[in-house]
Amino acid sequence: MKAIRIKRALTAALLLTCTPVQAQQAPASPAESDPVQMGWMQGSPPPPEKRVLFSDGGFYTFPKTRWSFAHYRDLMPTSRISRGNGPVSVMPLALRKDLDAVTFTPTGRSEKMTWAQAFEAVYGDAVLILHKGRIVYERYNGVMNADQPHIAFSVTKSYFGTVAEMLIAQGKLDENALVSRYIPELKASGFGDATVRQILDMTTGLSYSEDYTDPQADVVRFGVSVGMLPAPPNYTGPRAAYDYLPSIAKQGTHGEAFTYKSVNTEVVGWLIARVTGKRPHEALSEHIWSKLGAEHDAHIVVDSAGYPFTAGGLNLTLRDMARFGEMMRLNGRFNGQQIVPTSVVAKIRAGGSKSAFAKAGYTALTGGSYKSQWWINHNSHNAFNARGIHGQTIYVDPVAEMVIVRFASNPQASNVAFDDISLPAYQAIAERLLDAQ
Amino acid sequence: MKAIRIKRALTAALLLTCTPVQAQQAPASPAESDPVQMGWMQGSPPPPEKRVLFSDGGFYTFPKTRWSFAHYRDLMPTSRISRGNGPVSVMPLALRKDLDAVTFTPTGRSEKMTWAQAFEAVYGDAVLILHKGRIVYERYNGVMNADQPHIAFSVTKSYFGTVAEMLIAQGKLDENALVSRYIPELKASGFGDATVRQILDMTTGLSYSEDYTDPQADVVRFGVSVGMLPAPPNYTGPRAAYDYLPSIAKQGTHGEAFTYKSVNTEVVGWLIARVTGKRPHEALSEHIWSKLGAEHDAHIVVDSAGYPFTAGGLNLTLRDMARFGEMMRLNGRFNGQQIVPTSVVAKIRAGGSKSAFAKAGYTALTGGSYKSQWWINHNSHNAFNARGIHGQTIYVDPVAEMVIVRFASNPQASNVAFDDISLPAYQAIAERLLDAQ
Repeated sequence: MKAIRIKRALTAALLLTCTPVQAQQAPASPAESDPVQMGWMQGSPPPPEKRVLFSDGGFYTFPKTRWSFAHYRDLMPTSRISRGNGPVSVMPLALRKDLDAVTFTPTGRSEKMTWAQAFEAVYGDAVLILHKGRIVYERYNGVMNADQPHIAFSVTKSYFGTVAEMLIAQGKLDENALVSRYIPELKASGFGDATVRQILDMTTGLSYSEDYTDPQADVVRFGVSVGMLPAPPNYTGPRAAYDYLPSIAKQGTHGEAFTYKSVNTEVVGWLIARVTGKRPHEALSEHIWSKLGAEHDAHIVVDSAGYPFTAGGLNLTLRDMARFGEMMRLNGRFNGQQIVPTSVVAKIRAGGSKSAFAKAGYTALTGGSYKSQWWINHNSHNAFNARGIHGQTIYVDPVAEMVIVRFASNPQASNVAFDDISLPAYQAIAERLLDAQ
Repeated sequence: MKAIRIKRALTAALLLTCTPVQAQQAPASPAESDPVQMGWMQGSPPPPEKRVLFSDGGFYTFPKTRWSFAHYRDLMPTSRISRGNGPVSVMPLALRKDLDAVTFTPTGRSEKMTWAQAFEAVYGDAVLILHKGRIVYERYNGVMNADQPHIAFSVTKSYFGTVAEMLIAQGKLDENALVSRYIPELKASGFGDATVRQILDMTTGLSYSEDYTDPQADVVRFGVSVGMLPAPPNYTGPRAAYDYLPSIAKQGTHGEAFTYKSVNTEVVGWLIARVTGKRPHEALSEHIWSKLGAEHDAHIVVDSAGYPFTAGGLNLTLRDMARFGEMMRLNGRFNGQQIVPTSVVAKIRAGGSKSAFAKAGYTALTGGSYKSQWWINHNSHNAFNARGIHGQTIYVDPVAEMVIVRFASNPQASNVAFDDISLPAYQAIAERLLDAQ
């Protein structure tokens, strides 16, 4: 029973990857799956059928995810990312009432949809729009509020990618060096002859199986190793990320095609640790988080060795996520200081290899690229973004001077499944903001 | 092997109780067991022999405890106790250099000892002395610093006991009512015919076994239920505190003798939940923590049902613990407001039944009493304190206008094992502070 449930949790698509998944039989609607309505973890104590457990994998099954995505620290070990001691940076409120009614046509459809409808349609938990640094829209659903952290999943990657680029700019990390120069433990693995640059841009060729029916499969070993999944019965694999990574073999050639595999970001974290002598999230606090004037400490899921899940374990509040996006929009300058060097932001925003990216076949992102753990749209607005499964987003539109941050608990893991709504919606808001100027 | 290690962790005295334990073979000295020197969790990743794991119970074995007591949230699920949004309350620094040399004679010994020696002798991790609200002494050892939380163990109880007394003062909780009036689930248990007052003062008669060799023993079931211990192999018992409590039977008579059993405090937490409609730590934040001007959010270990370990799961920084003690010294008024009603503090400080307390046989605390989860010394200085295993302390001396807060990782669980040092040391500091006026 437990094994079945854990397997179901996995098949429900844990998977930290960004490849399209097939729709299951129709899940509960956004309204039907509202976590407050469903009563998850309500009662003293909650009755058994209302409990959301880590141990049986239930926390990662929809619709429990609509509660659990806001409560990862209640479910598993986490480590603090200190906001430091400075004052909170101000993002003035200038709420606009016209944005809910902004309409757009989802890609490939004929009927129009409003921004408000789009937020519901994607199972949005929280969304905020910054325009020229002012909060023009802010909304929370279900168990979310302005002080409630939410798991960011792979949005996490963009934070650590940025830290890595800062270390490259400081000359502490050589992007052209082989990974094995910094991490000899990976020499014999598939990462061994990849460059730091290839890891950062996910152009490695790696053997990484996603067979959900095999309890020893890579994807299970990875999830358990990083602390994001309970160990299935009879699991005998590694229980720490850096114990797992050396077992990943090479497949194909490095440097040719963008292939989104979260294990690369774990190597980014390991590189940060080796170069700074600090755990990656401590380096994140020191280099970025403590300088943003964040309202809250953030926290990140850690494995049994105390190392953070740099590919997807960050939990933070919506406004604090907006601060990071705004800093990137402002070329690294925010809260009265140059936090990330202008050159680093420029390098990221310039993007990566479009031809390597095209090979991955993301139809909603045609013409885009992937650079240093960021998705670059290369559209007319020079948009770029951070993306995490189930709808987590930082969308930066420099032309519209806009940042949109969103938390969601979409039953589908892959953002690709609802990019047809998300991306045109962002563009429509951007155009409205430009119109109004 | 795993079973043996977990059993060892238990025998090392998990046990949340305060009864004397026998000294094991001489443990490593305070200097030898320094967690930085020992290299716990150092390295990227730490080598296997330097890892401190929850899963094998190693985190609760000395000397690993000298690292783990400062890292409970890295090891298990925790929930936030929000500090709110107000400014940090100021405790001015007025450090004195004379206190390290203050001497005293440990009870039953002939050789004198200094305050500085005493701190080392008890395996102190952090200690701070407030005099008239000013920090006159502050010291951190090992992995501790001013921003690092530490587990408070049963000091936690005094926080929730105070919240419960506030609810009694508000008329929301009737101290003379039977527990079963609020918690029908406990009607058939040993708690069923105990009054709220008896629970708060731990004068219940309960059957609660502490047979460490039986994996189904109460003490193991309790530790696993509250989330503070890994489940031993073949464990089939409850995994949430409120699932466990109803199984505790009555033994003896309620109201006659003080018998320190942590399960009572879990019932205090449950009562708080029933009366406030909030989880106990949320009520703690609302009633006390958010008003103290704390420097940091605190956090508390939660079970699989999301409920906090009210008997011993609080983690907080030293200075924030000092703020709570100072508030109690000042009769509930702190940070510019009356946080706890004066009448509530007076009631606690007046103490409980000395005759009931005497039956427990705490020789170092002769003449004392226990009231609302606080230890009352009834000495010439009207001292009262919060005590947690392995040396956690809030010691309030109203006459000397002094508050001492201490974190420690003594290899012995019971404070009784080193009260012969702690209590005379506190008294000596109090007298020095009085002399200097």
